[in-house]
Amino acid sequence: MLQLYYALGACSLASHIALEEAGAPYEGIRIDLKAGDQRQPDYLKLNPKGRVPALVTDRGILTENPAILAFVAQSFPAAKLAPLDDPFAFAQVQSFNAYLCATVHVAHAHRARGARWVDANDTAALEAMKRKVPESVGACFDLIEKGMFKGPWVMGESYTICDPYLFTLANWLENDSIDPKRFPRVYDHRNRVADRPAVKRALAMEKTAAAA
Amino acid sequence: MLQLYYALGACSLASHIALEEAGAPYEGIRIDLKAGDQRQPDYLKLNPKGRVPALVTDRGILTENPAILAFVAQSFPAAKLAPLDDPFAFAQVQSFNAYLCATVHVAHAHRARGARWVDANDTAALEAMKRKVPESVGACFDLIEKGMFKGPWVMGESYTICDPYLFTLANWLENDSIDPKRFPRVYDHRNRVADRPAVKRALAMEKTAAAA
Repeated sequence: MLQLYYALGACSLASHIALEEAGAPYEGIRIDLKAGDQRQPDYLKLNPKGRVPALVTDRGILTENPAILAFVAQSFPAAKLAPLDDPFAFAQVQSFNAYLCATVHVAHAHRARGARWVDANDTAALEAMKRKVPESVGACFDLIEKGMFKGPWVMGESYTICDPYLFTLANWLENDSIDPKRFPRVYDHRNRVADRPAVKRALAMEKTAAAA
Repeated sequence: MLQLYYALGACSLASHIALEEAGAPYEGIRIDLKAGDQRQPDYLKLNPKGRVPALVTDRGILTENPAILAFVAQSFPAAKLAPLDDPFAFAQVQSFNAYLCATVHVAHAHRARGARWVDANDTAALEAMKRKVPESVGACFDLIEKGMFKGPWVMGESYTICDPYLFTLANWLENDSIDPKRFPRVYDHRNRVADRPAVKRALAMEKTAAAA
């Protein structure tokens, strides 16, 4: 059975929701990032990057949301979570998810994970990064709101693996001091995704699970 | 016919090489990042992100290397650039490319593109970012060298869309003040990829083309 390592409030929620949407048999294993579980030897053996999500499969371990999301869509095609038989449409899905992974998430991470990119003791540089986050993350969501988002779902008429990923990152807006109502279509999308039974199940599991 | 917008020395080389490896009919269009072509209205209409690569297809425009690379592999299956019929193996390819896109490239970008994440006038913070690059990029290549790289190609026996992407980013090591010989397998890989006819063609085209 699949095992998903996730953390509360982390981007792993996107993969978690996708597993629920797909009706996949899986076990969720919550780790505690604040306690440093991701840097423990046992976890690093599983995922040397020391990050979540990590999906344990019977053939090995997968990391990175865009890869896990596409894997879930391909492994459970009945759930129709991606346009699997159309290379162009599938590439649009991948492009959107790559943008979330490499640009939106990265911009956000400069608020609390700045020590990845400057010395951890350089308080001034860490603060400089934090100050920029509302602008840099806001610019990303402007692009999404005005250009990439097709509606009613990210890719148009069909709910895909882009939707739980956008939902997950849009949930961080308030903590980045950005009013989500600046982006009415993204905000409405966030509310509609939150109402889906699969999303409620994933969120409920994450909130009630004890850390491993 | 496909059109690839690329820039000299940019990550777009990965997509460019893949098109050559696939034997795809395409036109290469070079833009000049230093001259700011990527922020011109005509280019922003094409790619509102103001980045390269951008691939113009008869159905629309694709951006982000991981998406374009997978699209090329799927559109030209005879070139066997990805394990298309195996969701787990395909996800491993995607995972590797997501890491290059969201972690390795991002770490590198803190040397010359720091103004994405701090105020452009904050010289001290920009310098703090630059100082960290040898450590952060070096740690990425350590992970690749010791764990992710299977050999002789990234994914093992088959050359895939991971190989031109790793090659492209490994070419930046010297400019990030990192000795590539610290990573013997990656270094050997870089030399072997450079010897491939498709790679020589893409590099020759990039060097001799006039900017659009």
